[in-house]
Amino acid sequence: MTKLATRTSPSLAVTYSDVVRAADAIRGAVIPTRFEPSRTLSTLLNAQIWLKFENLQFTASYKERGALNKLLSLSEAERQNGVIAMSAGNHAQGVAYHARRLGIPATIVMPASTPTIKVENTRSHGAHVLLESQTLEQAYAFAVAYGEERGMTFVHPFNDPAVIAGQGTVAIEMLAVAPDLEVLIVPIGGGGLISGMAVAAKAINPKIKIIGVEAQLYPSMLNAVKKSSLPVGGDTLAEGIAVTTPGTVTREIVEALVDDILLVSESDLERAVSLLITIEKTVVEGAGAAGLAALIGANRLYKGRKIGLVLCGGNIDTRLLASVLTRELARDGRLSRLAIDIPDRPGQLAQVAGIIGKAGANVVEVYHQRVFTDVPAKGTELHLVIETRDRAHLDQVVSGLKEGGYAVIVKSSTGAGAP
Amino acid sequence: MTKLATRTSPSLAVTYSDVVRAADAIRGAVIPTRFEPSRTLSTLLNAQIWLKFENLQFTASYKERGALNKLLSLSEAERQNGVIAMSAGNHAQGVAYHARRLGIPATIVMPASTPTIKVENTRSHGAHVLLESQTLEQAYAFAVAYGEERGMTFVHPFNDPAVIAGQGTVAIEMLAVAPDLEVLIVPIGGGGLISGMAVAAKAINPKIKIIGVEAQLYPSMLNAVKKSSLPVGGDTLAEGIAVTTPGTVTREIVEALVDDILLVSESDLERAVSLLITIEKTVVEGAGAAGLAALIGANRLYKGRKIGLVLCGGNIDTRLLASVLTRELARDGRLSRLAIDIPDRPGQLAQVAGIIGKAGANVVEVYHQRVFTDVPAKGTELHLVIETRDRAHLDQVVSGLKEGGYAVIVKSSTGAGAP
Repeated sequence: MTKLATRTSPSLAVTYSDVVRAADAIRGAVIPTRFEPSRTLSTLLNAQIWLKFENLQFTASYKERGALNKLLSLSEAERQNGVIAMSAGNHAQGVAYHARRLGIPATIVMPASTPTIKVENTRSHGAHVLLESQTLEQAYAFAVAYGEERGMTFVHPFNDPAVIAGQGTVAIEMLAVAPDLEVLIVPIGGGGLISGMAVAAKAINPKIKIIGVEAQLYPSMLNAVKKSSLPVGGDTLAEGIAVTTPGTVTREIVEALVDDILLVSESDLERAVSLLITIEKTVVEGAGAAGLAALIGANRLYKGRKIGLVLCGGNIDTRLLASVLTRELARDGRLSRLAIDIPDRPGQLAQVAGIIGKAGANVVEVYHQRVFTDVPAKGTELHLVIETRDRAHLDQVVSGLKEGGYAVIVKSSTGAGAP
Repeated sequence: MTKLATRTSPSLAVTYSDVVRAADAIRGAVIPTRFEPSRTLSTLLNAQIWLKFENLQFTASYKERGALNKLLSLSEAERQNGVIAMSAGNHAQGVAYHARRLGIPATIVMPASTPTIKVENTRSHGAHVLLESQTLEQAYAFAVAYGEERGMTFVHPFNDPAVIAGQGTVAIEMLAVAPDLEVLIVPIGGGGLISGMAVAAKAINPKIKIIGVEAQLYPSMLNAVKKSSLPVGGDTLAEGIAVTTPGTVTREIVEALVDDILLVSESDLERAVSLLITIEKTVVEGAGAAGLAALIGANRLYKGRKIGLVLCGGNIDTRLLASVLTRELARDGRLSRLAIDIPDRPGQLAQVAGIIGKAGANVVEVYHQRVFTDVPAKGTELHLVIETRDRAHLDQVVSGLKEGGYAVIVKSSTGAGAP
């Protein structure tokens, strides 16, 4: 663990009083989501795991807190001129929802390729949605220019003290329920959430450890504070924290107050989303599972500690979720792809299917590979996707096939059958 | 709506005092789960929808309540002799978990084909698991005989007044939070939950309507109370309420107190599971979604009413869940199977794929159907599974292909690509 928190008494852009004021300001308009221990995850990870369910906010993420605090900080004239934001995700919904509540006109800029469901969700909160530009960067530049021309206030998703102070209220709620928390593990995208939380938590308890989490594919804050140059980019499940350039304000706070930043692999992110579904019966997006993913990857470090995780958002695309769940089945040996050499003769499929069926396994997909195979020309390769109860059951099916004289190769963990 | 509640002052096997005593008995050992309005579902269904999150019990179902109340009713001698139950599902976990807490030896009989994960879950609660028999009926008979020989108390999943009284505590909690509920919609398997809830709710507010829900494939309670003989059987998503023979005790209470029984289709069950995932970020099993499914099918009847739904369980197999989510995508036009007639010449796939890619859609699967097609021998049928943003986007892709001179058939709702 590298100690990032080097400055002892920094004068930062956001103070604890700012966060306390934000908590007072947003009270009643944002859900004080539940913060509860998970007995099963605690047993599984040898630590005392507490979960903050920010995925159960009305728009399903903590982003409402910062957006609302910013909106409440505007003057009457600024309110009348309206606000503008750029986001295809949770920030868009947070701004749109609270702007309408407060009667403030809101314009949201989204890249042209944004799925209609997200556009519609944001429109349903009464925002004026502009579909502009191909990339987030272009859309951002467009939004800033468009807003300036029209005198609108730009609501930044993270690099704004009022937004940061709003996000920090999450920590106040967590420590009010469990004042003896030893570690907070918080996802980092632009750094708004962890900055606000670190300011509040370290003021309440200077000994608390604040650990940030980024996706291995997007270590942009880590690069910034450690002067490293790990590659940044790619398709991550945690798209909510896939930020290429962290904020300047947030970076300064992270350097001052955050104890370490962990990077999580895509497979640990998938595992964490899946565990929260199966154990906690709760739906989180990839970014929302980042804290748990970090513990899966590094739980030796936190053995026995009392740890607060923020499930920061719940907006995951259902196709992605279905795919994550299916890939977990493949990893657990419950869904497998088998390649079996068979003579190209009548009755062979029946015989193979008979062995599998007798063992109580279910055939999901079948195809024959006649051309691209090493089997002699008179043979063929039969590819099957089968469903078994667990890995032991799979082993039993494979043994049965081998006893029946077939050469079998198991191709389990390739996301077989994933949609 | 047929009024089933014909008897006015029946002397039933379970009284309101029994349920109140059960509530006192189990307090502190069972979670008083949250009961909250859903703003989005209320808007969607034109009613005031409140949800009781029994899927968030420790073992993820209300079954703990009845099991615990029964265990607490045993004498010291009975406790020492231990208990036995037959269940491959939620009842098994409820009995095992609370028996261990109370130091009562528990034996759970499960059919031999029960997935290892369920066996392990039950064993992890300290129960002695016996894998016996091929069917639930045989396992039931085995468990009764095995327990009698050894002096164990049999804990029935529903047909026992102590169990029914325990389940009824759900209604007491709901009405304590929202005394002005007008309708309770409750899933029926054996009838334990609805019986206990009806006794309590009608005692608290005689005007409240109690509506039961069964899967269309398992209308066994409806058959019993209406003397009908609708077919019973088949594979339902709501396996938790797939009961072929309802209880005698529960049937008597249902006849006396339940106002109507609705049947829900498999597609409404799938839709309801999917809505709870996407809107409420909560995971329910098929049976747990039955109440919402009933409202989807019959919400005209309940327009504007204040309705309490019980999300009675959250233990859904992940493969099933992934499949439900994927099928919803197909229904929503986001995942589609296209059949396209093309000349069997080089460059044709490239051209089709080019049109699809240019329209911003994603090709998920490709195969050529050369033999079984009506296309002339020089042609071939190209089958594609594509992913689009929504139905409008799909229409745009199809138009593009037609403008390119291709004959296209869309085969959307066949669960294309489902694992």
